[in-house]
Amino acid sequence: MTTTVGTTTTTFDLGPAGALACRECGHQIPLAAEFACAECFGPLEVAYNFGTVRREDIEAGPRSIWRYRRLLPVPSDVDDHPNTQPGCTRLVRADRLAAALGVKRLWVKDDTGNPTHSFKDRVVAVALAAARTLGFTVLACPSTGNLANAVAAAAARAGWQSVVLIPSSLEKAKVLTTAVYDGALIAVDGNYDDVNRLATELAAEHEDWAFVNVNVRPYYAEGSKTLGFEVAEQLGWRLPDQVVVPIASGSQLTKVDKAFRELGELGLVEPAPYRVFGAQATGCSPVSAAFKAGHDVVTPVRPDTIARSLAIGAPADGPYVLDAVQRTGGAVEDVTDDEVVEAIRLLARTEGIFAETAGGVTVATAKKLIANGQLDPDAETVLLITGDGLKTLDAVADRVGPRATVPPQTAAVREALRG
Amino acid sequence: MTTTVGTTTTTFDLGPAGALACRECGHQIPLAAEFACAECFGPLEVAYNFGTVRREDIEAGPRSIWRYRRLLPVPSDVDDHPNTQPGCTRLVRADRLAAALGVKRLWVKDDTGNPTHSFKDRVVAVALAAARTLGFTVLACPSTGNLANAVAAAAARAGWQSVVLIPSSLEKAKVLTTAVYDGALIAVDGNYDDVNRLATELAAEHEDWAFVNVNVRPYYAEGSKTLGFEVAEQLGWRLPDQVVVPIASGSQLTKVDKAFRELGELGLVEPAPYRVFGAQATGCSPVSAAFKAGHDVVTPVRPDTIARSLAIGAPADGPYVLDAVQRTGGAVEDVTDDEVVEAIRLLARTEGIFAETAGGVTVATAKKLIANGQLDPDAETVLLITGDGLKTLDAVADRVGPRATVPPQTAAVREALRG
Ligand SMILES: Cc1ncc(COP(=O)(O)O)c(C=O)c1O
Ligand SMILES: Cc1ncc(COP(=O)(O)O)c(C=O)c1O
Ligand SMILES: [Zn+2]
Ligand SMILES: [Zn+2]
Repeated sequence: MTTTVGTTTTTFDLGPAGALACRECGHQIPLAAEFACAECFGPLEVAYNFGTVRREDIEAGPRSIWRYRRLLPVPSDVDDHPNTQPGCTRLVRADRLAAALGVKRLWVKDDTGNPTHSFKDRVVAVALAAARTLGFTVLACPSTGNLANAVAAAAARAGWQSVVLIPSSLEKAKVLTTAVYDGALIAVDGNYDDVNRLATELAAEHEDWAFVNVNVRPYYAEGSKTLGFEVAEQLGWRLPDQVVVPIASGSQLTKVDKAFRELGELGLVEPAPYRVFGAQATGCSPVSAAFKAGHDVVTPVRPDTIARSLAIGAPADGPYVLDAVQRTGGAVEDVTDDEVVEAIRLLARTEGIFAETAGGVTVATAKKLIANGQLDPDAETVLLITGDGLKTLDAVADRVGPRATVPPQTAAVREALRG
Repeated sequence: MTTTVGTTTTTFDLGPAGALACRECGHQIPLAAEFACAECFGPLEVAYNFGTVRREDIEAGPRSIWRYRRLLPVPSDVDDHPNTQPGCTRLVRADRLAAALGVKRLWVKDDTGNPTHSFKDRVVAVALAAARTLGFTVLACPSTGNLANAVAAAAARAGWQSVVLIPSSLEKAKVLTTAVYDGALIAVDGNYDDVNRLATELAAEHEDWAFVNVNVRPYYAEGSKTLGFEVAEQLGWRLPDQVVVPIASGSQLTKVDKAFRELGELGLVEPAPYRVFGAQATGCSPVSAAFKAGHDVVTPVRPDTIARSLAIGAPADGPYVLDAVQRTGGAVEDVTDDEVVEAIRLLARTEGIFAETAGGVTVATAKKLIANGQLDPDAETVLLITGDGLKTLDAVADRVGPRATVPPQTAAVREALRG
C-alpha cells in the first residue's frame, strides 16, 4: 500500500521504503531489522514514499527484478553489489492447457527460470539487499528446500556467510543442492515448526545474522511483489482478471495482490478489478478450510502432503490471505496429492513446463475452481508456477517412464510405437 | 559465414537462410531436410543472405533467441507458433571466481536459466521452427539427456508428437524429466553410438520425423549461435577476448565462433580478434588429443567420464573445432573427473551457480588453461555454463552435505558452527 510516511526520519537508504508499519494497528517505526509491532505484536510491513514512478524508468532498467527497484525496499545502487539477478522469467501464453481446462485466455508465469529455479530467488535477493544496508553480515534461514537453495546461492555469490537450517528428514536432492554452495548447512532433528522456532531463537542471539524470513521478513516479503509487477508489464502494462497463487505462509499471495494495487495507485496500469485465488494441498489446507468455513482466522494443522514446499501448518499470513481473497472476490481451494501429480503431468504434456509439486497444486486448484464455477472461464487468467519439477522427482517417479525398452533395431522401435 | 547464395531459388521461407552449402566442397543445394553433401558426403551448413541487420532491430525484438531471427534459419513469424522461447539467459560478472582463478575480467554465461535448464532448448527451438517450415510433423532425437528433455518439452508445447531415443542405462532423473512430457520415449539397449545409428536409420524410413540432430542438423546447429550473439549483446555489443566452450559433438563451439564472425562481418560489433578454447573431460577427449598432437582429424574414443552429456566418442564437428581453435589462436584442453567435481563446487561456492558436469568441465579447463599459460589472465574471458547441476546430482553426492545434524537447540547449532 502506498502509505505516506510523513516526517519519519531514518538513517537507512532503502530507496522508496520510508518506515515499517504494523499491519494490525498501523503503528509506524523507522526502518530497522524488526518484524513485530512493539504495540500489538502485529506483523510489520514496509511503508513507502513512492513519488512518481514511470513505465519508461522501469523499462529502461535491467532484465531482472531490479527494474522495479523504485517499488522495492532496496537502495538505488542495489545492482552494483553481486547478487543473483533473479526475475524477468517467462510469461507464456498457455493455449493448450487452456483448451484442456476449458478456459479462454490463460497464461503461465514460469518462475522455474530463476537462478535456483524457484521464486524464492526474488525474495532472497531483496532480503540480501536490505540486510546489507541494515548492517548484517550473515544470511540465514529455516527452510524446507527452495528457500535453502536460494539463500545458500545468494550468499555464495555475494561472498557472505550463510547459515541454513533444514529438517533432517529433507529429501537428499534438496540437501545436496543447498550444500553445494558451501555455506553452513545444519540439519535439525525435528519438523519444520521446530526448525522455525529454533531460527527465531538464534535470530535473537546473533545480531549479525539476517534470517531472511524471520528478522528481515518485512523486506524479504516485498520481493514477491515482483511476480505481480512482471505479469502486469509482460501483459503490456495491464492486470489480468484472475490470478491463481500457491499458499505456504501466504506471503506471496498477499504481495501479488499488493503489487497489483500499487501499480493501479501509481498509474502504471489502468486500475481494474482483479480476483486473487489461493491454492493449497488438501493435506495442508488451513487457509482453504478457514475460507470455506467463512472464518477470518486460520486454525493450524499438521501437514501431510507431497507438496512439501507448501507444507506450513501455521501460515503467518493466513488472515491477510483471507482478506485479499475476500476483498477481490476470489477464493481458496485445495486439491489432493493425486490431483497434484496429475496436474504436474497435465502442465508438462500441454505446455512443456515441468513444475514441482507446488506448481501441481496451482494447476490442479485452477482446474477445480473452473469445475465448481468459481474461476470465470471467459476471463483472462494467470497461473503462478513457482518451483521446478527437477526438485520433486519422486512425485512423478512411479507414474512416468519410457514406453518400452527395445533392442537397437528400427523394427523394434516401430513395434513399440504401435503398441 | 555470410556466404552470398547468388540466384539459388527455394520454396521454403526460412528467413535469411538461402541455401545449404557443403562445408568441405562448397557445393550448394536449395533449403531442404538434408545434412550430407551429395557430391562429397561432407556436412551441410546453412548459407545466408543477411542484407542489413541493425542493433535496433534486434534490441526491439522479444526477450528470447527470436530477437536474433534475422540471423537464424527461421521464418519471420517464428514466434507466432507456440515454442519454448529460450535464451536471454544471464551473463554474470564473476569477480569471486575470477579472484579464485587469478584472472582479471571474467563472465559466466548461465544457460541453466533456459526452459529445460540447458542450452539444448536453443538448438531445439530453431530445429522445430525449421522442421515446421520443411513440412515435418514429428520431433525426434537420439540423446543422452539434455537434448531428450528439450525435444520432449518443445514438442509438448507445440502440440507435436515426439520420439526420443535414449540408452537404457540413462540415469533415472534424466529418464523421468523426459518422460513427464508424455511423448514417445523409447529406451534402447545399447550405448549412445548404437542409439545414434538407430536414429539415422529411422530418419531414412520416416519422412515426417525430424530428428533434430540428424536430418535437420544444419538448422538445429545454428541455434548455438545465439549463445555468441547474446554474449556480445550483453557485453554492450562487443566481443570478449576469450571464450571457453564445452565440446561434445563440437557443434556449439563452431557456432559460437561463427556467431562472433557474423557479428563482425555485419558491423554489429567492432570486428576484433578473439580466441576460442575448447573443454573436454579426459575420459572423452578425442578433440583435445588431436589438438595436442597437432592433427587435423579426430580419432574416435570409447567414452568413460562422469561428464555424460559430453560423452561423444566420435564428435561429428571435431575437425571444424580444431580449425576454429587454431584459426583464433585458442586451444583445447581436458580435465579429470575429479577436477570436474571440484570445479562444480568452485563455481557454486564463488558465484552461487550450480552447474552440471559439463559446466564443471568448462570451469576446470579454464583453470588448467590459466595455469599452463594458454589463457591470458589479463584478457576478458567468458565461460559458457550450458547445463544444470540438478540433473547430475550424483557428481557431488558423496562430497557435499550438512555440516552437522543437531537437536533443535541454539547451543547445538553454535557448537556445530564452531566445530
Ligand atoms: C515453490 C513455492 N511456491 C510457493 C511457495 C509459497 O510461499 P509463501 O510462503 O509466500 O506462501 C513456496 C514456499 O516455500 C514455494 O517453495
Ligand atoms: C550441457 C551440455 N553442454 C554442452 C554440450 C556440447 O554440445 P555439442 O554437441 O554442440 O558440442 C552438450 C551436448 O549434449 C550438453 O548437454
Ligand atoms: Zn501494531
Ligand atoms: Zn561437398
